Amino acid sequence: MFRAITAPRPGGPDALVLERRTVTEPGPDEVRIQVAAAGVNKPDTFQRMGLYPPPPGASDVLGLEVSGTIDAVGSGVSRWKTGDAVCALLPGGGYAEMAIAHQGSVLPKPSGVSLRDSAGLPETVFTVWANVFEAGALKPGETFLVHGGAGGIGTTAIQMAAAHGARVIATAGSDEKCALCRELGAEIAVNYREADFVEAVKAAGGADVILDMVGGDYADRNLQCLNSGGRLVQIAFLKGSRVEIDMMRIMLKRLTVTGSTLRARPLDEKARLAAAVETHVWPWIESGRFRVVADAVFSLEDAAKAHALIDSGGHAGKILLVP
Amino acid sequence: MFRAITAPRPGGPDALVLERRTVTEPGPDEVRIQVAAAGVNKPDTFQRMGLYPPPPGASDVLGLEVSGTIDAVGSGVSRWKTGDAVCALLPGGGYAEMAIAHQGSVLPKPSGVSLRDSAGLPETVFTVWANVFEAGALKPGETFLVHGGAGGIGTTAIQMAAAHGARVIATAGSDEKCALCRELGAEIAVNYREADFVEAVKAAGGADVILDMVGGDYADRNLQCLNSGGRLVQIAFLKGSRVEIDMMRIMLKRLTVTGSTLRARPLDEKARLAAAVETHVWPWIESGRFRVVADAVFSLEDAAKAHALIDSGGHAGKILLVP
Repeated sequence: MFRAITAPRPGGPDALVLERRTVTEPGPDEVRIQVAAAGVNKPDTFQRMGLYPPPPGASDVLGLEVSGTIDAVGSGVSRWKTGDAVCALLPGGGYAEMAIAHQGSVLPKPSGVSLRDSAGLPETVFTVWANVFEAGALKPGETFLVHGGAGGIGTTAIQMAAAHGARVIATAGSDEKCALCRELGAEIAVNYREADFVEAVKAAGGADVILDMVGGDYADRNLQCLNSGGRLVQIAFLKGSRVEIDMMRIMLKRLTVTGSTLRARPLDEKARLAAAVETHVWPWIESGRFRVVADAVFSLEDAAKAHALIDSGGHAGKILLVP
Repeated sequence: MFRAITAPRPGGPDALVLERRTVTEPGPDEVRIQVAAAGVNKPDTFQRMGLYPPPPGASDVLGLEVSGTIDAVGSGVSRWKTGDAVCALLPGGGYAEMAIAHQGSVLPKPSGVSLRDSAGLPETVFTVWANVFEAGALKPGETFLVHGGAGGIGTTAIQMAAAHGARVIATAGSDEKCALCRELGAEIAVNYREADFVEAVKAAGGADVILDMVGGDYADRNLQCLNSGGRLVQIAFLKGSRVEIDMMRIMLKRLTVTGSTLRARPLDEKARLAAAVETHVWPWIESGRFRVVADAVFSLEDAAKAHALIDSGGHAGKILLVP
């Protein structure tokens, strides 16, 4: 038996329940991981509220990423063996002592990061790679704007874009968070409670790529501050997805508006992303140009406290759970 | 001296004025064309109304495309010589007996099309190539939806997409226009006055690429009928560009929304497009898979009648002016 966190009835942080589950064997293409830590991500809170159900076949246990030590491998697995220190992207099942991962969604723990902190890598690194580097095609020398710069996605995006040689502008909701963004490599950090990000970005010469998880009235404002040929990539809608925009901006500036989710992608697509991340992003971590910003670590039993913190928006960087 | 049409004061079709202009010599990278015919395009009517001024340096004479015979070449021009039968994309100056074109915006008249009718090729072929084939990346076997299927852009887009091996759905405003769309290669033509195109496209399996010049309430409806990975390319906004959309569709289906204008592109970009069009589209014309659908031909003096016809929306295919 192992301990795991579920949300059998939609609700606030208190809806999280500690259960005991039976250990299962990994399937032919899977590995079992003895969990060192699990990352807490915004989508987990939507799942807790009943707004983001796990995809068919996925565990009902919460959690999209873990780190740990492999303790069993399926018959079709060649790369991984028992005892390997790894981190993995999961369709669910991370808030637990044991987790099952598809072999293609597993990455070796990078050197220079603790096994615990590497739990904070997969979800945000895969998301930023797929959306900023692939869909957004950010190039060195271009200007990149990320909203929520002090969050899990934001701290990852700032560091990856800066390591790639892009110029980074971030928005955040306090002066302390703006200071963190600058420390991580943002040339400009805009406190959106005190300044209009559109004016700040335009004054800085405009943005070539924007990563947005806000939506609402940010949509048209993002289009306003994109340069000709710019790309807006949408990965969530904290202020709503039904937006009013002036599409003339898209036509006249030849903009591209796109977006994606990570969880719904097929396994072979996730394996392709994992290979790209290992090739391009792991060296940045291993050379010290990118670190996991862990804001808070809770024990598995305190998952409700972790969710209350991420719900409050008061955190900066990643929140981790340790079984 | 030569005759030319301008619109010195914004207004309806009667605002068009026949003037006499002095013949000028082509610049080093330009050719002068004795015009056989000029194409009439929707943007010309916006220019007449004062809504679409010519770009800096362009002629104030209306007209974005001509066919004819080269009668003078600049010192830096090697490919073209006096007497060549050509058609050309222009930043302006087409509604005239003589026109000046940049050498990179000139194409040889394709075989199998009259010199007159080839005036109807450049603006729509360049537009469809740049937006459907480049920005939209339409692939053989994919489903392509074009609105205004019986217009100049529509008749061109249907034929080019069908020649490329795509499945074509078109919308148009009458049963006669729908019949023309089918004759040109559309598998399905939807009379938008009588049926909901969203339902029709969904019933046919959805669209992979949409070329839209309508905007307004079509924007969100276009997003509704795109398949996963689909691309919406916007080239005009006959119903307005300020639109309300649900961006969740873009994220969940990983859609791409983009658009462009042709006239504002730099000359080297137009030369690149011309080379691509000559390589990929001219063979379709020369093998009979694509023809110019010329609805009406007017003399230059009757430019106002041509504009009244395009304003009415009653035409099908291209409208030409003959000096």
